[in-house]
Amino acid sequence: MTEDKKLSKALSRRDFLKTAGGAAAVAGLATSGLALTPWTAEAACNVMPKKWDETYDVVVVGSGFAGLAAAYEAKKLGASVVILEKMRTPGGNSIINGGVVSAAGSPKEQEQGIKDSPDLLFKDMLAAGLNLNHPELARMVADQSNETVQWTINELGVKYKDKLTQEGGHSVPRMYSTYNQSGSAIVQQQLLKLKELGVVPKTQSLLTQIYRDSDGRVKGVQIREKYVFPKSDSGKIKNIKARKAVVMATGGFGNDVAFRTIQDPRLTAEFPSTNQPGATAESHREALRIGCTPLQLSWIQLGPWGSPDEKGLGLSPFFAQLCAAMYGLWVDTKTGKRFVNELADRKIRADAIIRVGNKCIALTDAAGYAFGQKAIAESMPLLLERGVVKKYETIEDMAAGYNCPVEPLKETIDKFNAGVLAGKDSEWGRYLQKDQKPLGPGPWYALRLTPKIHHCMGGVNINTKAQALDIMTDKPIAGLYAAGEFTGGVHGAVRLGSCATLDCIIFGRIAGKNAVAEKAWS
Amino acid sequence: MTEDKKLSKALSRRDFLKTAGGAAAVAGLATSGLALTPWTAEAACNVMPKKWDETYDVVVVGSGFAGLAAAYEAKKLGASVVILEKMRTPGGNSIINGGVVSAAGSPKEQEQGIKDSPDLLFKDMLAAGLNLNHPELARMVADQSNETVQWTINELGVKYKDKLTQEGGHSVPRMYSTYNQSGSAIVQQQLLKLKELGVVPKTQSLLTQIYRDSDGRVKGVQIREKYVFPKSDSGKIKNIKARKAVVMATGGFGNDVAFRTIQDPRLTAEFPSTNQPGATAESHREALRIGCTPLQLSWIQLGPWGSPDEKGLGLSPFFAQLCAAMYGLWVDTKTGKRFVNELADRKIRADAIIRVGNKCIALTDAAGYAFGQKAIAESMPLLLERGVVKKYETIEDMAAGYNCPVEPLKETIDKFNAGVLAGKDSEWGRYLQKDQKPLGPGPWYALRLTPKIHHCMGGVNINTKAQALDIMTDKPIAGLYAAGEFTGGVHGAVRLGSCATLDCIIFGRIAGKNAVAEKAWS
Repeated sequence: MTEDKKLSKALSRRDFLKTAGGAAAVAGLATSGLALTPWTAEAACNVMPKKWDETYDVVVVGSGFAGLAAAYEAKKLGASVVILEKMRTPGGNSIINGGVVSAAGSPKEQEQGIKDSPDLLFKDMLAAGLNLNHPELARMVADQSNETVQWTINELGVKYKDKLTQEGGHSVPRMYSTYNQSGSAIVQQQLLKLKELGVVPKTQSLLTQIYRDSDGRVKGVQIREKYVFPKSDSGKIKNIKARKAVVMATGGFGNDVAFRTIQDPRLTAEFPSTNQPGATAESHREALRIGCTPLQLSWIQLGPWGSPDEKGLGLSPFFAQLCAAMYGLWVDTKTGKRFVNELADRKIRADAIIRVGNKCIALTDAAGYAFGQKAIAESMPLLLERGVVKKYETIEDMAAGYNCPVEPLKETIDKFNAGVLAGKDSEWGRYLQKDQKPLGPGPWYALRLTPKIHHCMGGVNINTKAQALDIMTDKPIAGLYAAGEFTGGVHGAVRLGSCATLDCIIFGRIAGKNAVAEKAWS
Repeated sequence: MTEDKKLSKALSRRDFLKTAGGAAAVAGLATSGLALTPWTAEAACNVMPKKWDETYDVVVVGSGFAGLAAAYEAKKLGASVVILEKMRTPGGNSIINGGVVSAAGSPKEQEQGIKDSPDLLFKDMLAAGLNLNHPELARMVADQSNETVQWTINELGVKYKDKLTQEGGHSVPRMYSTYNQSGSAIVQQQLLKLKELGVVPKTQSLLTQIYRDSDGRVKGVQIREKYVFPKSDSGKIKNIKARKAVVMATGGFGNDVAFRTIQDPRLTAEFPSTNQPGATAESHREALRIGCTPLQLSWIQLGPWGSPDEKGLGLSPFFAQLCAAMYGLWVDTKTGKRFVNELADRKIRADAIIRVGNKCIALTDAAGYAFGQKAIAESMPLLLERGVVKKYETIEDMAAGYNCPVEPLKETIDKFNAGVLAGKDSEWGRYLQKDQKPLGPGPWYALRLTPKIHHCMGGVNINTKAQALDIMTDKPIAGLYAAGEFTGGVHGAVRLGSCATLDCIIFGRIAGKNAVAEKAWS
């Protein structure tokens, strides 16, 4: 059967309607047009359901930082609110994130004598973002960074460590770290506060449609209740009316191979992700279908320090970065050679691993192992125990372990060692640590590298009010807000670490407040 | 009035309908759903018009290389065909392009002893495209490059120069150049052949809607006939039925400031374009509205060698490249300093000009002027005559001419000259020409630089059959084809020069043939 025939067959399956629970009745559907553009067109439209099963003022889709922040603000303003989450547990990627949040101009910075300002954070964000950031959105994140972190402390009761930290791309140490080094410390407080207000996310509720009426307004959503991820036919169709607005906060699509390879064909199923399994694109597709505007979808951030031998973010970054990138080497096992400055930025390193064919290892000697272990003593034995890091007595053993040609590998190590003695990495220009010594002899430690998909910089286009903007007019879609990783523009080409949580909470809160301010349509 | 209120007002203007000529009657609109995805949703839908004003088997929108190629193949296969072009004249950007087309494994290469293959061209395309190319699409362009160039010769009667040329990024000289060094040599032959078959593009016909019915199929388009660009309310609404298919071939959106700044906020109105004025995004917006899939829209190619003192591509590249980049200097007038290796690739140089604030000049001395003039004798006097290149007797005069600090400028020239004497550009690592001499004394020649927007690599997602793919299902949208710059995927991040014409003609021809093979819906 040709593709065409398959399609025709699918299209003729009108009885599918019944199982989908869509409303077949058409009542008073009228066309509409916005006279705001140099051409004329109707809004993308749905057939509205005959009957709404439930009604709320504000319907929030997604239960990460952004969705919970939106729901909290809306509820506090007296709106009736529902939070829809497709997975069994709330929190999305937020609950497994690293728990670092930047605050420019914070009290802690002042205590510690660090000179910082929102201007400086803004500048850092644009430099990392290659100036592809929508400046008005990035500006808001920088300007509101400190008050947002303070809000998480004062309003939510989030606890942070005393010490401010710093990551690549930041001009100064400005990062608050949650006490447990995880976003869960924030999400749990959000959930607690919402529970006090009587709002508990409805889990296992998959978004299947956004209802945009022929007048251009979003009026509700269709879901599958008691959905079991990823079974597409599980659960029961329900129609949820949003009297004021729908807030889309369903995160990124890092785990959706079909969708991500349209935007970046390199990112096949071969590449794992640090995301939770539900980071798929069905809500992105649906939002684009009803007229949202796509923005920079092809900028997908990879962490270069992942390992295929453990799931998610894992512990591999500790070894790959602290032991190998800072002290040892990253080597392409196909050639036995180095292929990048091991301390280049995330994008350069991830692109390099992919370019040479994604068969690379991070390696170091006993001194490098000890070098990393100073910083993260607890993680190193776990990595060995789990077999993510392997120990080899000789270079020959290590080469054999990865099917790597041994002579080129030896030459690579010799060349690097000669550079160490000469005080300069002339091959790749890497900064050499003060206590760097020539590598060897054994034992050696090594880890298989693979870039892991980490964050989608792109998403739907919003304005500073968190209103989703229409593809035809660039004007707000009435009744539709969006926030967090689901949107694009804040981070440009490359997201600066510790700015995602800010993005989510700031625009989530704005979306929640503005959703309540909408005039109810029924 | 707040944005919300403005929107509400616009949305309430139902009488707008009358002026837009949209059909208000709703007859038998039913929902439909494709059971192909893990969620359920209806296709974006229009209200079909009450009456079709004209009917064709195949409706081609756009009259550049791709649209004309599609129309030609469809007509030859016996279909009734219309070509809709919004501007007063046909040809789009194709008719003003540089007229170079790559052919890998051509008879001319064999004559001239050049070893080449489709594999090598494919490799070059992926290297330039940073592997963001959709490989199956790029592969087709590489594989069909030679037969396509031969087809333009044998079928269309296009005449090329004898000598093959080579541009940055190509491994070997493989470019055929039209006798007049312009794409018009191809477009005019396409128009001629179509005229022989009785098909003449209907100019001043603006696409205002693509009609996608509730069964998911595209059934026609709405246009404004006798449209006068860019007057949005000019012309008269007409509905054109496509019994078999619509082929979208409306090119890129390089001249649409609103749309391009969503994808790349750096590209404000400050940046001119090499495109014809009609390279705007209304057809892209409409295609996305009815369910096409956006692909890599944020990759927009700039030529770094433009000048704000002339329109379009102009002659400035000759001076900026041959006289200044190869022999003289590119200088930031805000600092008086160089800011990039003047022979780096287009993207690096364009990004660098934008990064330093877009106040740069290309300059050279009399020897550099003569160096460039050897290659393009006829253009240099014109550049001076038109005031695009200016002549200054002293460095002081030149600095004053661009409000550039004179001492740093002198230091920059001295530093470069010291490098020339030492045989190495130690500052930026530029390759120095064999007959490079230290610069100076006067006279000096200079030109204001600005990157010009040149090509949109992104567009709608198609498959190898040139079928436009649905945002919800990644399956073909029945009755809709697309080709050329309107689509994305062939070129990835950066288009290799001389591959756009191939892309357009190859996928245009495929679209035209496959459109005819569709089963008519009425």
